[in-house]
Amino acid sequence: MRKFYAFITSSASFGHYFCSNRFTPLLHSPPPPSFIRHFTPPMAAPEDSLRKALADKLSEVENQGNQVRALKAGKADKSEIDAAIEALNSLKLEKASIEKDLQATLSSSEGSGNREAFRQAVSNTLERRLFYIKSFNIYGGVAGLYDYGPPGCAVKSNVLAFWRQHFVLEENMLEVDCPCVTPEVVLKASGHVDKFTDLMVKDEKTGTCYRADHLLKDFCNDKLQKDLNITAEKAKELKHILAVLDDLSPEDLGAKIKEFGITAPDTKNPLSDPYPFNLMFQTSIGPSGLIPGYLRPETAQGIFVNFKDLYYYNGNKLPFAAAQIGQAFRNEISPRQGLLRVREFTLAEIEHFVDPEDKSHPKFAEVAELEFLMFPRELQMSGESAKTIRLGEAVAKGIVNNETLGYFIGRVYLFLTGLGIDNKRLRFRQHLANEMAHYAADCWDAEIESSYGWIECVGIADRSAYDLRAHTEKSGEALVAHEKYPEPREVEVLVIAPVKKEIGLAFKGNQKNVIEALEAMKEQEAMALKADLESKEEVEFSVCTLGKNVTIKKSMVKISKEKKKEHQRVFTPSVIEPSFGIGRIIYCLFEHTYYTRPSKAADQQLNVFGFPPLVAPIKCTVFPLVQNHQYEDVAKEISKSLTAAGISHKIDITGTSIGKRYARTDELGVPFAITVDSTSSVTLRERDSKDQIRVDVKEAASVVKDVAEGVRSWADVWETFPHHSSASADE
Amino acid sequence: MRKFYAFITSSASFGHYFCSNRFTPLLHSPPPPSFIRHFTPPMAAPEDSLRKALADKLSEVENQGNQVRALKAGKADKSEIDAAIEALNSLKLEKASIEKDLQATLSSSEGSGNREAFRQAVSNTLERRLFYIKSFNIYGGVAGLYDYGPPGCAVKSNVLAFWRQHFVLEENMLEVDCPCVTPEVVLKASGHVDKFTDLMVKDEKTGTCYRADHLLKDFCNDKLQKDLNITAEKAKELKHILAVLDDLSPEDLGAKIKEFGITAPDTKNPLSDPYPFNLMFQTSIGPSGLIPGYLRPETAQGIFVNFKDLYYYNGNKLPFAAAQIGQAFRNEISPRQGLLRVREFTLAEIEHFVDPEDKSHPKFAEVAELEFLMFPRELQMSGESAKTIRLGEAVAKGIVNNETLGYFIGRVYLFLTGLGIDNKRLRFRQHLANEMAHYAADCWDAEIESSYGWIECVGIADRSAYDLRAHTEKSGEALVAHEKYPEPREVEVLVIAPVKKEIGLAFKGNQKNVIEALEAMKEQEAMALKADLESKEEVEFSVCTLGKNVTIKKSMVKISKEKKKEHQRVFTPSVIEPSFGIGRIIYCLFEHTYYTRPSKAADQQLNVFGFPPLVAPIKCTVFPLVQNHQYEDVAKEISKSLTAAGISHKIDITGTSIGKRYARTDELGVPFAITVDSTSSVTLRERDSKDQIRVDVKEAASVVKDVAEGVRSWADVWETFPHHSSASADE
Repeated sequence: MRKFYAFITSSASFGHYFCSNRFTPLLHSPPPPSFIRHFTPPMAAPEDSLRKALADKLSEVENQGNQVRALKAGKADKSEIDAAIEALNSLKLEKASIEKDLQATLSSSEGSGNREAFRQAVSNTLERRLFYIKSFNIYGGVAGLYDYGPPGCAVKSNVLAFWRQHFVLEENMLEVDCPCVTPEVVLKASGHVDKFTDLMVKDEKTGTCYRADHLLKDFCNDKLQKDLNITAEKAKELKHILAVLDDLSPEDLGAKIKEFGITAPDTKNPLSDPYPFNLMFQTSIGPSGLIPGYLRPETAQGIFVNFKDLYYYNGNKLPFAAAQIGQAFRNEISPRQGLLRVREFTLAEIEHFVDPEDKSHPKFAEVAELEFLMFPRELQMSGESAKTIRLGEAVAKGIVNNETLGYFIGRVYLFLTGLGIDNKRLRFRQHLANEMAHYAADCWDAEIESSYGWIECVGIADRSAYDLRAHTEKSGEALVAHEKYPEPREVEVLVIAPVKKEIGLAFKGNQKNVIEALEAMKEQEAMALKADLESKEEVEFSVCTLGKNVTIKKSMVKISKEKKKEHQRVFTPSVIEPSFGIGRIIYCLFEHTYYTRPSKAADQQLNVFGFPPLVAPIKCTVFPLVQNHQYEDVAKEISKSLTAAGISHKIDITGTSIGKRYARTDELGVPFAITVDSTSSVTLRERDSKDQIRVDVKEAASVVKDVAEGVRSWADVWETFPHHSSASADE
Repeated sequence: MRKFYAFITSSASFGHYFCSNRFTPLLHSPPPPSFIRHFTPPMAAPEDSLRKALADKLSEVENQGNQVRALKAGKADKSEIDAAIEALNSLKLEKASIEKDLQATLSSSEGSGNREAFRQAVSNTLERRLFYIKSFNIYGGVAGLYDYGPPGCAVKSNVLAFWRQHFVLEENMLEVDCPCVTPEVVLKASGHVDKFTDLMVKDEKTGTCYRADHLLKDFCNDKLQKDLNITAEKAKELKHILAVLDDLSPEDLGAKIKEFGITAPDTKNPLSDPYPFNLMFQTSIGPSGLIPGYLRPETAQGIFVNFKDLYYYNGNKLPFAAAQIGQAFRNEISPRQGLLRVREFTLAEIEHFVDPEDKSHPKFAEVAELEFLMFPRELQMSGESAKTIRLGEAVAKGIVNNETLGYFIGRVYLFLTGLGIDNKRLRFRQHLANEMAHYAADCWDAEIESSYGWIECVGIADRSAYDLRAHTEKSGEALVAHEKYPEPREVEVLVIAPVKKEIGLAFKGNQKNVIEALEAMKEQEAMALKADLESKEEVEFSVCTLGKNVTIKKSMVKISKEKKKEHQRVFTPSVIEPSFGIGRIIYCLFEHTYYTRPSKAADQQLNVFGFPPLVAPIKCTVFPLVQNHQYEDVAKEISKSLTAAGISHKIDITGTSIGKRYARTDELGVPFAITVDSTSSVTLRERDSKDQIRVDVKEAASVVKDVAEGVRSWADVWETFPHHSSASADE
């Protein structure tokens, strides 16, 4: 009989797609935006024509220079020489002007100066207020490892709580919690042991390691941005390299590094050839040293290996989704980009299992009317920009492969904007054909624009049946679903029945190999053999496990097609996987909500994180206007009510000026502040508008609870309560 | 001048305390309860006297047997022989009776049969309902690694949310989130690299590894329980070994294993000598292989290395507490005891930093009236049992070292009982002197009784300044606090001023060693040297870094005491550390809330987890009484309201009988069930009482929200709403 997993795709065939796609969705940053904008001809017109004009003008300057020299050498008339020099100077001016334009074009398309200044301002505030800390800082730290300090940790825990509410609870997902330490066999099946690599080069003298593609990318970007004298053709070549960077083989990458003379950035020493480095942290489980293990590079595999139990838990019904929040680990070669590329991070992943023949979604209508920036493959290929598209239309037109994938895109949009991500700087970009694994049906990344460019923060992929099949093959445990037919169906089944006695007599010790080879035949091959045996009585038959042909006689095997009643369909479910890089989302949120405003008191800028109450690390601060026991008692009373209401807050009884205390809490993104300035009523201030209202002491906690939890809007509260304006209470 | 960290305790001096104390608090299970009960004389009377009686009776039987044989050999009178035989038989009966009593005493003190049956029943339900799953099960699993399945994961997430509310929010703690991957230098400073070991023995033929102390413990326990013929003296020896097991050196442990002829449990092969095995998972950070790293064995170190930043964040004020929830890892030699001894687990740790001179706590009064089982050192030493003590009294009498430690003991008690831990099976056990690290001021474990005995689930230790000093010494970064004096204080300071020129002339290449040795002198030594120099002009002085004495002349060093104004006190804070093994608490909670009740329908037991709503994985199920569209619509409407109210629930529209559906949700510990049996009102049922009330459809969600969140009690709801009794709706 045929084996169940004869049809499973071999893991050997997905080649380099493994590295550059399955794992890029989340943490290998996407090609820089310039690549997306310039991916195919037409190339960006102004830059190109300026480069061409500059090259032309250079040669004109050269020619004119020669002419001046010739006139001088020929002792020509002074007025003639002067005229030629004047013409040369004017050409030089024209050249300088073109250079300036080109420089401006290049730097405006990057805006790198502004971006870096902005990033520095955000980072300064984040570090000073301990949103994050370089891990193990007193020992010099470790690249790619960061701690969340108190406010960062609170933001993270709020983001995760909202994720759990928005996805797990609202969609009745099955949440699981699996270990980080994972035995090798699991990651061998998933392909990580063999394919989860980046190409690395070593400084041949110091041994320092670099990511090969990063060095080449930096070289190309640097050349394009700073070298005004390269030709349009050269620029085109460099851009092409940037475009195909992820597809380059180790040999091609090595050849380019040699060709461009790229050396080690720190020492200028020569570099080794590129070779693959596995990005998983390796360890050993148990005392014997015989069980190799890794720290998981993603949480998804823990869900796949539990499919059978989870399917049973769900009453053996599809569709259902499992979810997991947890740490994942990637031993990056040389982490850069701060919080965006780290060696340990929190992932939140959903694996939604569906019948591959029915990817409709009952709640799709709830998101169909959403409109947001989408960047389908076709727009990217034709050099256009992302466009606002209605989600229902995207699915109806087949831009998004199916309703379930579309539903998750919509839910991710609601999640991110609910956190405070600016929807004008959020787009859903479809993977290009060369980015996507061969088995994937469709794949979209939620990209958020930051000072580092467009950052992939959520990957939403229809991965078909790939993962469950890989684990079925490796473990021998059938990870399949069943669909009972309302009525049994009659089907034709191929039956291959080797006659063991005859085969045993003929092949003795090899009989097992022959029998297995016969049973492994697919339908077409089997029916051809049957026909051959009927006409020729003897047929040559290849047994690959013996590495030779044997002669099969008609008496050795019976091949037939039999009618059979089938009661159910057995199939491997497809999986749709939204995978969230929580740290990246949080970093982008920091950038999107950060702003500054002038201080009234002094000539300085005040920093504000405009977090929505949902994610704010603390919802409210409480402080007495002046240090006195009565006010402090009122503040403590309000604090007690806030604790009882479950509203995180901070009480500040330092004698600092109210303006300074407001500035401090604005920097932490605290949305509300209560100033105790009487024993009967208090002032409640909203962070962004700086509006202030008067509220009864007894009511204060419940009003804050309502606005913090979104039960009432600030606008509503603003209309209900008397306003308060006091210069002393403002900064 | 003297160096700041000259006074720091060297890490070499804490010896074996390291392994058996600092790290046992949480995950190395405590000695078995029998040890605690029998730790010191008087030994348990009945067992001892029975063993003695049995030994006496055995020798009586032997004597009488000899007599019978002698009579027979001497061909004595038949009546005489018969009488002797009768006496022998009666002695044998008496011996059998004593054996039976001893057997009963031994097994009742263990209750092992019942305990195992109960544990099996709980585990069966937990596994069948996917509370937990053996990790990577389709690949045969890995010892000591478990997944939480959907209901287990929900319970865990509820426990953590409550922990965050109860500790972090209510106490305004500074929560941080640090990586699991930790560079070696940090764990070298903390002592883990050198001392975090267990003693291991290997099967000399197969190489299989075992924990040496476990083999010896098993041998002793087995002998004590099953061998009725050992003498009271032998029993005493074995019990003594159990008592001092943690203190045995590798040599002593090896000698005992040899003496008792203990072999490998699986093969009976001989065993190697015991040697230390480090329990940390090792890895390597970055591509060069040059940065050794480990998976953290606890989360605490991440807090200690951040002390300086956190102190600053807290406005440079003490006391304050930092907290962290996260994964920790211990590569156990051979994990046993299911969920209680695992290789990866979630810890929740608090490091409360205080001034060592003021360990009072402003909120102690809030817990002072709590009364619960405490097991102070003295009671353990005198062989008594744990006693109910009022916390305020325990602190006042000095049983608990200080108010802050006492406050946390009280808060831990409230936390655990709030989760549903039975307070009759919860005790706070003080560490014995030999269990406690030399630097610790006091240490209490919250122990919960389970089928495995009393299990250490929370360790609450006053660790003094040990950890901050260790990191100060290793990193060179002063992890200290400052207390500004209201007025500057005049203090006498020792000043040691070596005269470099003179020393250089005298000692040339060794001058640095001599200068450092002079500067390192403590006050007493320095003043003695000063006196000697004044009287003798020349003094022999030991320079340990040179390994010899040198001659110091009066001209070479000036020693004086100077008056100085000090504006502040600089000191290393003490740290009080409550450390929670979340997985252990959850497992004990499973055992404490599990019960069975008879089914009405069939002759079987129904399983119930009586979780309080706070931790229940789902708060409510909703199901239509019969399958019909009207009822289903009502069910969906209620489900929507519950979602909006943030109440996790499940809607079950299968046609299964109501009784079966109740049984299913009881097994998951769902506290409330709504049965839709009309379109205007519904039946709401409470799990444990099986009471049912009638509630309006519109009101259903808000009533469930109120009782689930503890705003209203079920008793209150029961009095407010009409009751419902229907045989069909019950099982």
